[in-house]
Amino acid sequence: MSPFGLLPMRAWASLFSQVLRPSGLVCIREVHFHSQVSEAVLTSQLKPHQEKSNFIIKTPKGTRDLSPQQMVVREKILDMVVGCFKRHGAKRLDTPAFELKEMLTEKYGEDSGLIYDLKDQGGELLSLRYDLTVPFARYLAMYKVKKMKRYQVGKVWRRESPTIVQGRYREFCQCDFDIAGQFDPMIPDAECLKIMCEILSGLQLGDFLIKVNDRRILDGMLAVCGVPESKFHAICTSIDKLDKISWNDVRHEMVAKKGLAPEVADRIGDYVQCHGGVSLVEEMFQDSRLSQNKQALEGLGDLKLLFEYLTLFGIAEKISFDLSLARGLDYYTGVIYEAVLLQTPAQAEESFNVGSVAAGGRYDGLVGMFDPRGHKVPCVGLSIGVERIFAILEQRMKTSGQKIRTTETQVFVATPQKNFLHERLKLISELWDAGIKAELLYKNNPKLLTQLHYCEQMGIPLVVIIGEQELKEGVIKLRSVASREEVAIKRENLVAEIQKTLSES
Amino acid sequence: MSPFGLLPMRAWASLFSQVLRPSGLVCIREVHFHSQVSEAVLTSQLKPHQEKSNFIIKTPKGTRDLSPQQMVVREKILDMVVGCFKRHGAKRLDTPAFELKEMLTEKYGEDSGLIYDLKDQGGELLSLRYDLTVPFARYLAMYKVKKMKRYQVGKVWRRESPTIVQGRYREFCQCDFDIAGQFDPMIPDAECLKIMCEILSGLQLGDFLIKVNDRRILDGMLAVCGVPESKFHAICTSIDKLDKISWNDVRHEMVAKKGLAPEVADRIGDYVQCHGGVSLVEEMFQDSRLSQNKQALEGLGDLKLLFEYLTLFGIAEKISFDLSLARGLDYYTGVIYEAVLLQTPAQAEESFNVGSVAAGGRYDGLVGMFDPRGHKVPCVGLSIGVERIFAILEQRMKTSGQKIRTTETQVFVATPQKNFLHERLKLISELWDAGIKAELLYKNNPKLLTQLHYCEQMGIPLVVIIGEQELKEGVIKLRSVASREEVAIKRENLVAEIQKTLSES
Repeated sequence: MSPFGLLPMRAWASLFSQVLRPSGLVCIREVHFHSQVSEAVLTSQLKPHQEKSNFIIKTPKGTRDLSPQQMVVREKILDMVVGCFKRHGAKRLDTPAFELKEMLTEKYGEDSGLIYDLKDQGGELLSLRYDLTVPFARYLAMYKVKKMKRYQVGKVWRRESPTIVQGRYREFCQCDFDIAGQFDPMIPDAECLKIMCEILSGLQLGDFLIKVNDRRILDGMLAVCGVPESKFHAICTSIDKLDKISWNDVRHEMVAKKGLAPEVADRIGDYVQCHGGVSLVEEMFQDSRLSQNKQALEGLGDLKLLFEYLTLFGIAEKISFDLSLARGLDYYTGVIYEAVLLQTPAQAEESFNVGSVAAGGRYDGLVGMFDPRGHKVPCVGLSIGVERIFAILEQRMKTSGQKIRTTETQVFVATPQKNFLHERLKLISELWDAGIKAELLYKNNPKLLTQLHYCEQMGIPLVVIIGEQELKEGVIKLRSVASREEVAIKRENLVAEIQKTLSES
Repeated sequence: MSPFGLLPMRAWASLFSQVLRPSGLVCIREVHFHSQVSEAVLTSQLKPHQEKSNFIIKTPKGTRDLSPQQMVVREKILDMVVGCFKRHGAKRLDTPAFELKEMLTEKYGEDSGLIYDLKDQGGELLSLRYDLTVPFARYLAMYKVKKMKRYQVGKVWRRESPTIVQGRYREFCQCDFDIAGQFDPMIPDAECLKIMCEILSGLQLGDFLIKVNDRRILDGMLAVCGVPESKFHAICTSIDKLDKISWNDVRHEMVAKKGLAPEVADRIGDYVQCHGGVSLVEEMFQDSRLSQNKQALEGLGDLKLLFEYLTLFGIAEKISFDLSLARGLDYYTGVIYEAVLLQTPAQAEESFNVGSVAAGGRYDGLVGMFDPRGHKVPCVGLSIGVERIFAILEQRMKTSGQKIRTTETQVFVATPQKNFLHERLKLISELWDAGIKAELLYKNNPKLLTQLHYCEQMGIPLVVIIGEQELKEGVIKLRSVASREEVAIKRENLVAEIQKTLSES
């Protein structure tokens, strides 16, 4: 039986594969499985004599509980992602939820303000981790690990203005895969892109594209366009907005707000509006300005090699060299990439851009920032944006109206008679001890109809029924909830018969 | 093949079953898989021109990284625990790592000082969760859930003085199972004890005992002994120490430090030194003093019923009614329990008491503390102490010297020749796309010996070898790492042959 019970594997597959209305980037709206979520902010009135003001029962801003239905979807996604990481030979690592505050400083640029600090309660100054990359680099430096292919799944925390409607939370789950070590160029980088393709295809999220660029090309481009080095960061931030606002608006911001000369902005515009495949890499090699810049040439050389490997992996057509891709984080030093979905789920009322669903890049200097002697360990990796993928699949499930089982119970122990609790307890204990997933109602004398109704409601496939008559004859009735057929089986064969029935279904 | 590769399933089972030297409570010492852990506190010297003081690379006090080897053991434990929770029909829930600070106040008694607060960065006052029970109760009240059988696995944080040598951390993992709802008495409570037995047996930790008591019996006992109600809490704290220090020392603390009359202390001593099975429950029913106390009688009545059900579950002999069991947390209202191991692993150099490995109880008032109208939802549950179980199994593995695979790679793609990267990349891509777990070295021209050595070191069972000759003949060599046998197979049958070989091994 499918672990999703009521939802057979075929239906589950169709859930992942459902064809979406193609119209640019994915547009979805936030969906809640809790019908009560809209009323979830409740006021708890304490008894008057406690003289305490009313308080509101809620989760902290930007965070949420995940209901059992949501957890089923979440775990399905994580299983697929982790399955892919294991297929590529990664080991699992875990690090604490918080780090010494100083471990996180000077790693995230402008985003540092979004780090959650812990209160100074007399001891070390601590911060909640902002991603899984910096803790990984800290781990490599601390244990002097020079080579490692690891994955990590865990929550990270960022004090962003939560626009929950876009699937942005202050607490969210990341799935990271990274390859650390000195290797021949672009082989691990190409594997990272292959992994992103495998995961996005595997989750059947619809068509997607991975934008690729290189920090060195970006810096080289800014330099040859005439941007003063002091403005690189600010201009990158503007360029990064090109997936949300038009070039004209970005240009205006560069000139009016960031004081760039209009002709410099126009030169940038010529580049950042370019995207294409390996032919664009060749074109840029010939570019009169870019070809003068050593850094840019190095980046272009690596991208050319990367495309060679991507072709061998059969994924080159999924990759777009995009000169507007900047990526916010400070620690990237080479190739960077970001996956976006190209389709729109049907029936979305209010549409929005889910943004990137996976991203990553090369960060060759980060480990060295932790190492006592500054020894570098080159790294490249990727992070899967589980929350956004989750929002898409949750929406799809809601649209499809499919019911998901939240338990895996195989057998329910029922009785039509009063005073049969002892027999039910003995019986269910036998089932549990045999590894069979079983439940009963916590009532001394439940009605048979209530018991059978519970099975239908919960999608439990089998019921064993014991009563006066059965007890006398040394038998048990085994009932199929779907067909309502019942067979009498010998009490002593109970476990074997159930196992047989379950293995056949 | 076993998911643990180098460690066949049989060896794994023996790891769990290894017979321990019986000599009282389990004694182990802390073991590290990182050989470097002792040097893990490193000083990072930043370049002099940065004018920054040296800093130490470490994880925060009381926290640790889990290495890939440790994660394999950890996940094995979690799989067993979660498997048991699912066998009993529980749904999975997740809640945020932090809660509004006020959600956690007045829930933990004296332990409240151990809660980690987040810094006030302009917004809500937040605290890291201290356990998974209070967030569960908050969830039930917030969504007005009246009935739920749920499990949750997650980290919790407590600012305890970390005696890491005893497996106590400030960040640790809890696995909780709880049943919320109004049911007939003691049926869910008995199931919780059954679950604890199944998990502790399943993990093959050696002999164990579950101490049971009831908060009402405890309070009734204190009352009939003549303890003033204002001293209940302080005296309970002393009683709670009986598993670590002798009755004489506890008595001394009660009299000298907590101002209890010696004769009152002696009366308490008569009770708290009692433990036994259902016959002790009967005995206490007849006790001239206790039988005068309504609360105590209610507790005794429930315990009697509980033992009836435990007998039907076949676990009564694992349970000991122990009048000294107090449990620290404020929120318990009825039956309470705590599992301790009764054996000592061999070869422990410095012995210590690992303390309880699982615990729980009934808390009928907690949800009502969150509900606007104070509506109660009775709850009973248990928590598995993963860290302590982990410390025991880790020690056992170290003693046994067994090697654990940290990856699941099935096939390695190798070549004896130079300039074969392209062929290797095409080949491995095919394997990944077929769902086969495969690796290669990230080198343009690795030596064959290096490649084969990597397979032996990592426990990878199969190698596919491609070279000039094979390419010409349209074949691939498939090599068994263990037997060193090689067979030539047709290139086009590669995936099918590998899948066949893997399914046979």
